[in-house]
Amino acid sequence: MNPIKNPALLTDLYELTMAASYWEHGMNQEAVFSLFVRHYPDKRRYFVSCGLADVLKYLKNLKFTDEDLEYLRSTGFFKSEFLSFLEHFKFQGDVHAVPEGTVFFEDEPILEVTAPLIQAQIIETFLINTINFQSMIATKAARCVHAAGDKKLVDFSFRRCQGIDAAMKVARASYMTGFIGTSNVLAGKQYGIPIYGTMAHSFVSSFKKEKEAFQAFSQTFPENSILLVDTYNSMSGTIKAAQVGEEMAEHGEQLKGIRLDSGNMTELSQKARRILDEHGLKDAMIFASGGFDEHKIQKVLSQNAKIDSFGVGTKMGVSADAPYLDMAYKIVKYNGEPVIKLSTGKVSLTSDKQVFRFSSDDGFYDHDVITLRDEQLTGGSPLLVPVVSEGQIIYESPPLSDMRACFKEAFSHLDDKYKSIHKDKPLYPVKISKKLRNLQDKTEQKYRNKEIL
Amino acid sequence: MNPIKNPALLTDLYELTMAASYWEHGMNQEAVFSLFVRHYPDKRRYFVSCGLADVLKYLKNLKFTDEDLEYLRSTGFFKSEFLSFLEHFKFQGDVHAVPEGTVFFEDEPILEVTAPLIQAQIIETFLINTINFQSMIATKAARCVHAAGDKKLVDFSFRRCQGIDAAMKVARASYMTGFIGTSNVLAGKQYGIPIYGTMAHSFVSSFKKEKEAFQAFSQTFPENSILLVDTYNSMSGTIKAAQVGEEMAEHGEQLKGIRLDSGNMTELSQKARRILDEHGLKDAMIFASGGFDEHKIQKVLSQNAKIDSFGVGTKMGVSADAPYLDMAYKIVKYNGEPVIKLSTGKVSLTSDKQVFRFSSDDGFYDHDVITLRDEQLTGGSPLLVPVVSEGQIIYESPPLSDMRACFKEAFSHLDDKYKSIHKDKPLYPVKISKKLRNLQDKTEQKYRNKEIL
Repeated sequence: MNPIKNPALLTDLYELTMAASYWEHGMNQEAVFSLFVRHYPDKRRYFVSCGLADVLKYLKNLKFTDEDLEYLRSTGFFKSEFLSFLEHFKFQGDVHAVPEGTVFFEDEPILEVTAPLIQAQIIETFLINTINFQSMIATKAARCVHAAGDKKLVDFSFRRCQGIDAAMKVARASYMTGFIGTSNVLAGKQYGIPIYGTMAHSFVSSFKKEKEAFQAFSQTFPENSILLVDTYNSMSGTIKAAQVGEEMAEHGEQLKGIRLDSGNMTELSQKARRILDEHGLKDAMIFASGGFDEHKIQKVLSQNAKIDSFGVGTKMGVSADAPYLDMAYKIVKYNGEPVIKLSTGKVSLTSDKQVFRFSSDDGFYDHDVITLRDEQLTGGSPLLVPVVSEGQIIYESPPLSDMRACFKEAFSHLDDKYKSIHKDKPLYPVKISKKLRNLQDKTEQKYRNKEIL
Repeated sequence: MNPIKNPALLTDLYELTMAASYWEHGMNQEAVFSLFVRHYPDKRRYFVSCGLADVLKYLKNLKFTDEDLEYLRSTGFFKSEFLSFLEHFKFQGDVHAVPEGTVFFEDEPILEVTAPLIQAQIIETFLINTINFQSMIATKAARCVHAAGDKKLVDFSFRRCQGIDAAMKVARASYMTGFIGTSNVLAGKQYGIPIYGTMAHSFVSSFKKEKEAFQAFSQTFPENSILLVDTYNSMSGTIKAAQVGEEMAEHGEQLKGIRLDSGNMTELSQKARRILDEHGLKDAMIFASGGFDEHKIQKVLSQNAKIDSFGVGTKMGVSADAPYLDMAYKIVKYNGEPVIKLSTGKVSLTSDKQVFRFSSDDGFYDHDVITLRDEQLTGGSPLLVPVVSEGQIIYESPPLSDMRACFKEAFSHLDDKYKSIHKDKPLYPVKISKKLRNLQDKTEQKYRNKEIL
């Protein structure tokens, strides 16, 4: 656990050694850095931005404590003069960013920092870590929400998330994209997310008989019992749950539902539905868990599985089929001059930029254009908005429930063909403005002539 | 960020609702829960345990604060009497566990909790989250260390880790298994891990000329400069770095090395070695980064790449090819009676257990036997040791550097055929004792007769 008292050292060493060398050489003019995803991972066709609120909090509070500076001194890498400089360090730059819940695409800048070089450099590691992970999860969760249609999803990933911080962020990102809640109690408390739970096999195992376990749980939670039926055999378990449901009905109570957690979900859910219906429990829901992601959800629903809600765990919580994005934070301008990197396979778009989104008459997103920051394209909506000005946070993150509503609205404007969870459909069109293209070509040529021997 | 003040709510809701129902029904006899990995993920043939220190800290500090209880009350799930019970909750059970850095295998218990049922239940989510993630990373990192042979590895994964907590734990787990250090400064401070860094493309881009950037950095860090050469072109960059290395030599300084970060690593490293050697820089090292994992390391080394050290980032830091383990925490005994789960594909081993490891005459691990806890097998070493007794921590986690040495020693006893990073070799033999097998069969039969309609 080790709660982190101060985030300033949450950085790669090279951010600080570069800063020391910049500082020693008087290199601290205004720089622009751009954050973007270089390539779609396998099967992804869009992304959903997430994590800005954490970045703003970090920028606001960023300072090196005496303890931090003492540690840095002890490493032997840094001169006293530079450590004195860090003592007074704070972020005083500008940031433009897309709001959380924005749908975005490959190569599009989603956050740009304009600040003295050292400030813009030192924040790199935290920015990428935060936005990369949360956007990756929001994207994965949005794919699950899309596949589920009108069925409901709950985040069950806590135990298999990559650490505690991940579990918290997964609960938040998945709720933002349309999950109805999470099993994570602290996330419920901290983010105001509805919390959900059923029961574990251990509950059933610890009673002498499965049915006794069901009776005990429904006595404690007469309005909130979803009985896990597969500890011994899913159909035997469903029959016992249905009997308990009947008993509850005799007392005027209502069994909320059952949970299936292993085996062939389509078949089992159809049989379970019949059993519940035959016992007069038409309103008892069938909750399913166990290895669900967008693909398994789509598959069982296409087979007419009788599932009302899914517990979506591990595969969403670690974005198992794409557990990282190729997100980069690159310097694109220094001291007024556009700069560029030409590394094999990693050429990035130069200069400070904006993204304009154009919609068709029927309201669907039609295409995006990446432009220079100061271009104005008629008819398009700019995606990046100012969020920090001279170190002051000027953007208030909306409540999570508002972000959730905004994402739902935005996502409805993305045509289904671009939401495909397979690779069979066309890519959403992202163009580059003529001015940006010209500057890009000129800058590339300049660096090729200057630097390649 | 949101530092977590108190970990008691780091749990799935159902742990608490089950606890409430246990409590209401007087179900709080002694239970034994067992933590193990159900199946090898693709390509894994062994695991490395990690995370115990965090679990012990958690168990020691586990309590519900007034704020926690207030939140739980606000959810409406819980009766006042149960919340009063939680107010005085603390962990008072026993824990047996394998030390961090232990090599273990599919189905082997690596941690067992013996405690009143409610206590053993409530800690489930945190235990799995902590041990699952850290063991997964330690396993992935050990595979990289094995593939690298005598080459050195540094953890460069921070930016792509799944959150902040993950980045800290990855630095620790990879160091424990043999990485020489990390780029993560806070992990350096918190865990005493050596920190390493080179430079980023932005450093090069922000100077008017690549060579100026190299000169500036080596002036600031005359003993610690690894120059990144691929911002524009790896060979042009290497030539400029070599020239700077010659200039340094004239001042009696020594260029530490160069870093390659893109392109064909085998070819580029061979060419770069020649360039450096031709400039009299035989001691300048070649550091390589960019998509390395055990497979890419093995590949380039088998092609005779001239690489001295690897920065291993994303793919290790998220265990990209196996981003979760199928780790489970199952009740195996309640009130003296062995219990079992029979769910399709998920049958677990009943009762409290021990693992004995047998070595052959040449010192290599030969096979393991999973036994009942109270069995004694002559000639084998028991892997699980008592770490908590009646709520008191009785095991002191050794310093990380000692764990690292212990792991190195232990790993040397695992034959290379079991360390293969492919699936082509035999599995390490894990047997089940006759007594355990008999009890398992009897218990399975009992539950089949009793519960399956």
